[in-house]
Formats: sequence, structure tokens, C-alpha cells
Amino acid sequence: MRVEELEDAKIAEPTDAVIRLAATCICGSDLWPYRGIEKLDGPAHMGHEYAGVVEQIGHDVKNVKVGDFVVGSFVASDNTCEVCQAGYQSGCIHRVFMTGTQSELARIPHADGTLVPTPGVPEADLLPSLLAASDVLGTGWYAAVAAEAGPGKTVAVVGDGAVGLSAILAAKQLGAERIIAFSRHPERRALAREFGATDIVEERGDEGAAKIKEMTGGYGAHGVVEAVGTQESMWQAIHAARGGGRIGYVGVGHDVELNGLDLFFTGVQLKGGPAPVRRFLPELIWDRKINPGKVFDLTLPLEQAAEGYKAMDERRATKVLLTV
Amino acid sequence: MRVEELEDAKIAEPTDAVIRLAATCICGSDLWPYRGIEKLDGPAHMGHEYAGVVEQIGHDVKNVKVGDFVVGSFVASDNTCEVCQAGYQSGCIHRVFMTGTQSELARIPHADGTLVPTPGVPEADLLPSLLAASDVLGTGWYAAVAAEAGPGKTVAVVGDGAVGLSAILAAKQLGAERIIAFSRHPERRALAREFGATDIVEERGDEGAAKIKEMTGGYGAHGVVEAVGTQESMWQAIHAARGGGRIGYVGVGHDVELNGLDLFFTGVQLKGGPAPVRRFLPELIWDRKINPGKVFDLTLPLEQAAEGYKAMDERRATKVLLTV
Repeated sequence: MRVEELEDAKIAEPTDAVIRLAATCICGSDLWPYRGIEKLDGPAHMGHEYAGVVEQIGHDVKNVKVGDFVVGSFVASDNTCEVCQAGYQSGCIHRVFMTGTQSELARIPHADGTLVPTPGVPEADLLPSLLAASDVLGTGWYAAVAAEAGPGKTVAVVGDGAVGLSAILAAKQLGAERIIAFSRHPERRALAREFGATDIVEERGDEGAAKIKEMTGGYGAHGVVEAVGTQESMWQAIHAARGGGRIGYVGVGHDVELNGLDLFFTGVQLKGGPAPVRRFLPELIWDRKINPGKVFDLTLPLEQAAEGYKAMDERRATKVLLTV
Repeated sequence: MRVEELEDAKIAEPTDAVIRLAATCICGSDLWPYRGIEKLDGPAHMGHEYAGVVEQIGHDVKNVKVGDFVVGSFVASDNTCEVCQAGYQSGCIHRVFMTGTQSELARIPHADGTLVPTPGVPEADLLPSLLAASDVLGTGWYAAVAAEAGPGKTVAVVGDGAVGLSAILAAKQLGAERIIAFSRHPERRALAREFGATDIVEERGDEGAAKIKEMTGGYGAHGVVEAVGTQESMWQAIHAARGGGRIGYVGVGHDVELNGLDLFFTGVQLKGGPAPVRRFLPELIWDRKINPGKVFDLTLPLEQAAEGYKAMDERRATKVLLTV
């Protein structure tokens, strides 16, 4: 991981915008290539989370103007196709997976569909939360929605990273009765509690799943959020759910193989993949009703990005904000 | 496959009933052990579909009485636990997978939760449809519900067996706008059309999925029913759906492995497993609004069960009814 001087981002398509980032950050999913688990062909310009000020717009851009403060999501989408209109913008028929936003400037494709202007330029303390809305908040929120968190429901959350913590926050906002966080990490447990977790379970894997069944009269949770993406975490989530239970899975699956027969007999429902973060953009943050920016526990200048990756890799930091 | 004289079924638990079958039948899933793909430890008493007259009841049975004509589903369920009450009776916390109903008499556990009396003794022509309600109709119906078939929706159905055909019937009843059946089999295609299919696709696998995308403006179907249970059919279903699309999978997965990363990026939702057939029992049949019994295209006496298995194995018959 190194910081390099590159040519400035510029408009390539008439539907593009270029934004000047107010700040950027490192995602748990950035660790997959960092750790070599996800192979890259060569140097890659990292980053897919962003908030900042529009600096240029292409000829066809109508919904944002130069000077607007905007937040976007990690998948650029036209927000007009049938899939977007159904609320699955991350599955947009013209989707572009963002990259290269760990930088000062970034090109945003499908600017009209992707960028959401805030009512004004945010105060500095709102910036971490707005940046969280670019991926982890919306990803956690989608997982909680997919797990059908709501009144009367027990929801378990596998993964105590920024996405798992955001899912706890979302489950609370959605009115879940009981929110069980799997965590062994003291600081993350504390934030899980603050975000709305009612119970903490330290056990993992099938032992963790068994604990959830024990805590729910033998049934299992109504819904489970999977926010890790390993074979163990996926099955922990599946086995923690009751028959007909919902798994909202948003951890990028690495080395996960689901045996069809095993899955069949659990009778759970799997809903997930890249989250349509575009759905969950930032009203509640602007109104200071939620503070998802608390997932950032280390701030570094962009030049020290390498140290940020290292801190997250070693679990010394949950999520790193990079100032530009 | 052979027919043997066994001891009469009898009450073992106070919640049991014993029924005298009016007829029984062979399920596509019975072919897995028949073909040796599903291993058995020794001789097994086959059959999990049934309709007939209550002959004995245990002391605790209140909802059915001796002489009632009843239909039940292939999973016995208490119909009172939280999972049943949520409509997932096949995930009942006390569920019992039925077996041994290819016979004259059968013991039905959880009789109160499992058996649904019809308003009277059915006329003979209703019997095939009532028997279909014991598994294939409800399984197809659940798959169509899981695929969210409904007004304005395009639904594709992988599998032209009795379950796939039933899913077409259900999708039609649920108001789906376009119902695309994958089939190469002339008689089954004809029945698919009769049940409500608007289009037939002959291609299979990824070629079949590509055809669906082509027919839907590049999007893919809103929902896809998977009613086979092989690696090819499962991915055919997944790839035939659009982003955020629903897969209702009810084919018992054999040799199916779902790679987590591949599944993740499709963004589809998987809902399935053993269907809560109990939800879909027989009002529409009694009122002669649907005729799912048409999936039976061969009738044999129980003594010739072996020939029935052979005919289904060789795809000479879609589904075999066995008279007792």
C-alpha cells in the first residue's frame, strides 16, 4: 500500500461528475486484496467510499451542480432502470463498481443516479457519518432490512466490524426487540451496546449458533445479519436462524461454499450481496438522529493510508478515516 | 422397489392418527434414492404423499375425527409453534418428515396440526388433485410465492416435472403477467401451457438463462422457480433472474455447491427448502377452481409400484398415482 501522485480525475462521459473528497476511508473489504486473499493483476487505485463537493459535471448531468456537497454509494447506478426502481441500485443494469476514491479527486459515473446532495455543506462533525453512509451504514442497514429486523423480532449479527455495528444501529432504528451481537472485542462490544445491542455472545461458529438457539427457546433468531464473509461466519449465521428465518448476508463471500442439500434443509432465506446503499442515504444523519460515524476509531491523513490499512488488518482499528 | 406385506400402521403417540389411504403416489424426490444418488442404509418404506379417511385417532387428537376425509403434507407439523404460526410449517420445531405412505394405512404424527379435513368425502375425480396438494401442488405454490409471482411480474420456471408444472399453475393464480417454462418435453409443454405458461424455452443451463435475459430487455426474470435440484438447474435459475430477483428453490439439492462469491455478486435472493405445504391446502381444489391432479399421467395399482418408479425414472410418466 502506497500513496502516489496520479493525474487528476476528469470527466470521461457526459453523465460523469468529478468530486473533491472532503474525506475518504478504508473499508473492511479493502483488506481482502491487501491480505492477498483477493488477487489483483497489478497496482490498483483503492477506495470506494466518498463524500465531498462537486467540482465538475458532464453535459448530461442535471441533478447535481458544481459546489453541491454530495454523498454517493460504492456502486454507481443510473437510478432509473427497472432494477434501480425496484430498490436494488447495486444491481443496476448499468452499474459501475466504484474504485479509486482514496484520493483527493474522484470521477463518479452516472452522477445523476448516484450522487445525493445534502441540504448544505455539513458541519465537520457530520462528515464521518456521511462518509459511513457511502458504504458501511447502508450495507449494514440493507442487511438488517434483509434479515427483516422489526418489532417483535430477534436479530443476531455476525461480525463486529463497521458493517456489523451499522447493522445493529439499523436493527434498533427498525424497531427490533432483541439484537444479539457476536463479539469478543471490548471496544466493539461497547459500541454495539451503544448502537442498540441487547445481548452479546462470545461463542463463534456452531457453538455461537447453538447459543442463539438456547437464548430463543430452541427456535433461533428470526433474522441474522452476516457481515464477515467466511465459511464459518456464513454457516454460523444460517444455523443461528429458525426455520423460515432470514439471513441478510453482506460480507463479501471468500472461500464460502454452500452445500445445496445442507442449505435446503435449513429452510432459511438468503438475501444479500452488494447492498443497494443508494436506498439508505443520509436524512437521519443530517437530522442527527443517528451517528454511524462512531465506527471510525482512527483518523489519519491520506498520506498515511498504509498505516491505516495496517491498523485495520491488525484489528487495532475498526475503521479508518483518511483526511485529504 | 418391491411391495411387501407389513404390520398395520398403529397409534404410537396420543397425538397420532392412522389413516386409510384413498390413493397414494410417487414423488420426483423418491427417484433420488431409487437412482442410488441418495444412499439408504437398508430397505425403506417409501412415500410421503397421502389423502384418505381417518381410521383411528390418539387420545389427544381434537381437530379430526374417525371417518373424516383428510389431506396432509409431507412434513408433519404441530401448527402451533412459532415457526408454524409464521407460516413455515415445514420448519416446525417438532417436524417429522413423513415416510411410508405408499401403503394402505399410514400413521400421521401431529394429526391436529397436520391433517386438514375436506368438507366431505370427495368425488373420485377430485382425488388426484387432493393428493397433489399433499406435496407437489403446495411445493410448486410455495416456490411461486417465494419467487414473488404476481401482477406485472415475469416468472421463469426451471423444471417441467410435477412441481414445476404446479408452480406454473400457482404463478398463474397469483396473477403473474408472464410465465416462462423451460421444457423440451412435448406433453409437459402442453400441460405447462394449459396451466398458464405464456412462453416456452428449450435452451438449458447458461444458454437458457441468457435466453430469459434476451426476452426481458436484458434484465432477467423478476422471479425464478427452481424445481430440479442440480448444480446446472440451480445456476440456470440464479442466472435467469435480474439483480434483486427472487429464486424460489424447491428442488432437493443434490451435488449443488453454491460458491459464495459468485452468489454474492448476483444479488439474488434465495428462498426455499422443504415447502410449507400446510399453508396451501385444498380450498381451490374443492371448489374446482384448479385441477393440479392433471400432473398424474399414469395410474397403477399399488402392487405395481415398481413399474411406476420405472416409468418416472425413464420420464415416460410425469407423476404416478397408485390406487390402493
